[in-house]
Amino acid sequence: MTETVNDTIRNGVDTATMFATLDAIKAQPEIAAFKFRATNTWIGGSHNRSSIKSFYAACAEDTSRTEGWTLDAGEPAILLGADEGPNPAEYLLHALAACVTTSLVYSAAARGVRLTSVSSTLEGDLDVQGAMGVNTEDYRNGFERIRMTVTISGDAPPEKLRQVVERGRDRSVVFDSVMHGVPIELDVVTA
Amino acid sequence: MTETVNDTIRNGVDTATMFATLDAIKAQPEIAAFKFRATNTWIGGSHNRSSIKSFYAACAEDTSRTEGWTLDAGEPAILLGADEGPNPAEYLLHALAACVTTSLVYSAAARGVRLTSVSSTLEGDLDVQGAMGVNTEDYRNGFERIRMTVTISGDAPPEKLRQVVERGRDRSVVFDSVMHGVPIELDVVTA
Repeated sequence: MTETVNDTIRNGVDTATMFATLDAIKAQPEIAAFKFRATNTWIGGSHNRSSIKSFYAACAEDTSRTEGWTLDAGEPAILLGADEGPNPAEYLLHALAACVTTSLVYSAAARGVRLTSVSSTLEGDLDVQGAMGVNTEDYRNGFERIRMTVTISGDAPPEKLRQVVERGRDRSVVFDSVMHGVPIELDVVTA
Repeated sequence: MTETVNDTIRNGVDTATMFATLDAIKAQPEIAAFKFRATNTWIGGSHNRSSIKSFYAACAEDTSRTEGWTLDAGEPAILLGADEGPNPAEYLLHALAACVTTSLVYSAAARGVRLTSVSSTLEGDLDVQGAMGVNTEDYRNGFERIRMTVTISGDAPPEKLRQVVERGRDRSVVFDSVMHGVPIELDVVTA
């Protein structure tokens, strides 16, 4: 019995629950609509803080999280801050790294590939002439490009491991969001 | 003398340093090329961790940061995790909130607007039928849309405060990156 239960866990993912979730979504697609959230408060200068907890899933507000998290953002001295936290651009790179990693780990679990290690390095090029308004003709505000290198090992041949990474990329929420863009509606309330 | 020094600080931003930085970039545009970085390691299942510290700026590796940060990402139970941290999609919302906030605070400082408070709420719509591969015809992997509401108060009329937020949006690195997308190059190394 223990052996049977353990057999469903692969790469730390319960594949029985994974396949049951996929079946549930196929049977009732409306449960797949999620709403994720963050609230942010300015502390001072380049320092601000987000709180993350609530989200909507499976046609209801999720109640499984008893505690949330706070995340501090800042800027280094050269960008007029005091390193109160990673800066927003660095948080974007982290979001991308984390999402591709989780997607590929889940993909490997679904395909029966046991992974030994996954790590990644990311670097984004940004010319601040755009964001600082110095030269907005030649430079955009955002990253010009991002490079990501994933190093992976596991119980499959190199070509299969490569496919696992590519599948993770192709199913990643943040990869798609950053690669192809997302419409953002901004409202302003003056208090 | 103290009064003169204090006069340059607005919204926690040293505007004298800000304008000196802008002048330095105008005089020597190549110092505006930044490279931001993150490295990520898979821990198990939906749990992975990024380290953030080094970056390149002003034609050299920055050495001002003595310590960096680690950021843990996870997934809630409904997405097969154990809430090891905010999930990657939530980190993306935080990056967006933090960047628009810092951009608008800096913009207000440059324009002589003293802010009293800034807060924001963000919500992103995501149908996981795409990312889970259940229905990739009708649903993308990434966020369908993101809504952001900024609440702001300060020593300027509502219309001016609104312009400050819009200026912050229009100069934000992460807003532009997410709204318009960034080319991402992914390399794979099998170990």
